Amino acid sequence: MTIILGLDPSLTCTGWGVIRSEGSRLTHIANGQIKTHAKAPMAERLALLHGGIASVIAEHRPDRAACEEVFVNENPKSTLKLAQARGCVLAACGGASLSVNEHAARLVKKAVVGTGGADKSQVGAMIKVLLPGAKVVGTDAADALAVAIADAHLGRQPGQS
Amino acid sequence: MTIILGLDPSLTCTGWGVIRSEGSRLTHIANGQIKTHAKAPMAERLALLHGGIASVIAEHRPDRAACEEVFVNENPKSTLKLAQARGCVLAACGGASLSVNEHAARLVKKAVVGTGGADKSQVGAMIKVLLPGAKVVGTDAADALAVAIADAHLGRQPGQS
Repeated sequence: MTIILGLDPSLTCTGWGVIRSEGSRLTHIANGQIKTHAKAPMAERLALLHGGIASVIAEHRPDRAACEEVFVNENPKSTLKLAQARGCVLAACGGASLSVNEHAARLVKKAVVGTGGADKSQVGAMIKVLLPGAKVVGTDAADALAVAIADAHLGRQPGQS
Repeated sequence: MTIILGLDPSLTCTGWGVIRSEGSRLTHIANGQIKTHAKAPMAERLALLHGGIASVIAEHRPDRAACEEVFVNENPKSTLKLAQARGCVLAACGGASLSVNEHAARLVKKAVVGTGGADKSQVGAMIKVLLPGAKVVGTDAADALAVAIADAHLGRQPGQS
């Protein structure tokens, strides 16, 4: 039995989802989103994300974490914001001695929906099928659960963070 | 009297420097560098930076922190690594309710050396003049002290993080 924490970091709203994987059986445990205020100082927003994910880890004690490989946006400012958010979310994992697997976005979609070109609504629909009874709080939490599901299928990959 | 923590975040080696500012008088308190191993998992490296800066803050109890405005590298992968490191260093400040002033690199050089086009050796030489007796452990710590000195001169700026 493995508890997996899926993460979808972003500065505005970081999604997380915890699932249990036993053989081919997946069970939903919890999901959520950590939102930060656009007008709050950057350091405060990043501390909120770090502390929020640290709390999730302390509560659910996952065996490993997973997130998507980073997407380098064409807009350098967006990349910067995303990477800063990602950095403190990964630091929260590292601080709890949690390894983080990284998976390419298309592999996550392929593992959840069966095709790398799936859209958000298809991913959302498959999460309802794969994790029956899960109340998903939003699209970022759904993306985080998708990463966790993909990680359960794909297991440890060379692209570990 | 104000205690200022200057920061020069990077994934490989994050520099920090603490000074005391009383009117126009500056005093060196401490400086250091937090190095991470290139082969260690990313989450572990980021946690080391976060924990290291959190410890520096706990020990020296600065009134505020300062770092350079981020430099968007032409290489997106470098920008990403830097921004992830920066994110967890800023999160450590935010976690201690410390505000972080950001200053443009040329303003830091101008405040320390008198010209925005100064090179690293000129910055290093002026730090020895401005903070007599300071044993600076390396160039990243020197850059962090330069940011702290500049922040003492420039004070709170609109670009607060």
